[in-house]
Amino acid sequence: MVLVRARNPLNIGAAARAMANFGAHRLRLVNPYHVAFGEARSAVGATHLLKNAAQYKSVAEAVADCALVIGTTAVRNRALLEPVRRLDELAGRAVRQQLQSGPVAVLFGSEKIGLTNEDFSHCHWLLHIPTEEQHISMNLGQAVAVCLYELARTTVPGAPVPQVEPATAGTNEQISAGLLEALHESGYVKPGNEDACEKKARRLVLRFHLDAEDAKVFLGMVRQIVWKLRRVGKS
Amino acid sequence: MVLVRARNPLNIGAAARAMANFGAHRLRLVNPYHVAFGEARSAVGATHLLKNAAQYKSVAEAVADCALVIGTTAVRNRALLEPVRRLDELAGRAVRQQLQSGPVAVLFGSEKIGLTNEDFSHCHWLLHIPTEEQHISMNLGQAVAVCLYELARTTVPGAPVPQVEPATAGTNEQISAGLLEALHESGYVKPGNEDACEKKARRLVLRFHLDAEDAKVFLGMVRQIVWKLRRVGKS
Repeated sequence: MVLVRARNPLNIGAAARAMANFGAHRLRLVNPYHVAFGEARSAVGATHLLKNAAQYKSVAEAVADCALVIGTTAVRNRALLEPVRRLDELAGRAVRQQLQSGPVAVLFGSEKIGLTNEDFSHCHWLLHIPTEEQHISMNLGQAVAVCLYELARTTVPGAPVPQVEPATAGTNEQISAGLLEALHESGYVKPGNEDACEKKARRLVLRFHLDAEDAKVFLGMVRQIVWKLRRVGKS
Repeated sequence: MVLVRARNPLNIGAAARAMANFGAHRLRLVNPYHVAFGEARSAVGATHLLKNAAQYKSVAEAVADCALVIGTTAVRNRALLEPVRRLDELAGRAVRQQLQSGPVAVLFGSEKIGLTNEDFSHCHWLLHIPTEEQHISMNLGQAVAVCLYELARTTVPGAPVPQVEPATAGTNEQISAGLLEALHESGYVKPGNEDACEKKARRLVLRFHLDAEDAKVFLGMVRQIVWKLRRVGKS
């Protein structure tokens, strides 16, 4: 559970309490307002969880060891680059399957504006809670509770799917960074579109859905290409 | 939605907000602490709902016009006289069916002690949210949100997944060929392993499962990188 720029200590506490209720153990905070975090340490039944919460400076660092990164959004119709899934039994099953092979990060944004496009670019897909059209904005603590309830369901209908070990978000990020550097060195990135290219590269790599082995191979290739491009750039 | 002896205005507000999110319209309060109710009238998106909330002196009066009355309880093992159902798709369906013929009341108790045996005696059956054994006590606003999410579901499992147009084999092959050339130019391919590298590159690209749009983008990137590597190779 990753809370990005959460402001309200009550919400951080509520998120931690819901985690305790539904068996999620690791709380991570990206740039929380310091006061908010300090004041949150009193959530019923979740003191331990809050005490062990880790703080990060960026989403990339917070999700580095995760094999699946999911963003949450109240918006369903906006043109989003990442695939959006509705929270339901199927989405829950996808998460539970992934959990068997490695940690899954679920990102929640700030109370006011939610997650940004930059945050989304770290996500494999986005989750939205089906709500009334006129009232899509949920309280943060309640949204966390509803998501965890669905994701923690213990019913597993259907047959198990064969497992492969997926690449971690950290490895995917290394690949994206390498690819981006190759794009810079080769002149693909034009002045003014650095930012767009970075997001484009990151999203593309996530959509490759690399497993751990392929990721290792592909990272090796990208690094060799970057090394060569740099070398000739200097000569 | 019937809140029995709720104390905390934030929780009453949160319950109302979740009702707005999930399309429940009638809020009823049994013996709320007067101050609590007064302070709750500011819940985001639920002002109307709070304004129209009705107050009752007893559970009996609050549920008098309802065809189905459901209590909620965190306790699953206590000897209860009413049947206890776990919140899930089946419980949700039972409620939705009943809603077609008349109003359904869902009762939530006070933050400290929940519903009493007296309250339960008005219920057809009881609902409990499956939680961790060690952390069964949920925040009231979160419990309301989770229940309403489940009861309001309209999802039909097995709904069609949106289709994307996959990349053609021809495009995939162009990408593999480009990648292979970049690997040659960068020195990744060593004498003697040309053949193995070619297969490795092709298989890897196929496992990316590119859609048509991503394939076009990625091919553009690869070609630019190859162009640069070749150009410096010649200079």
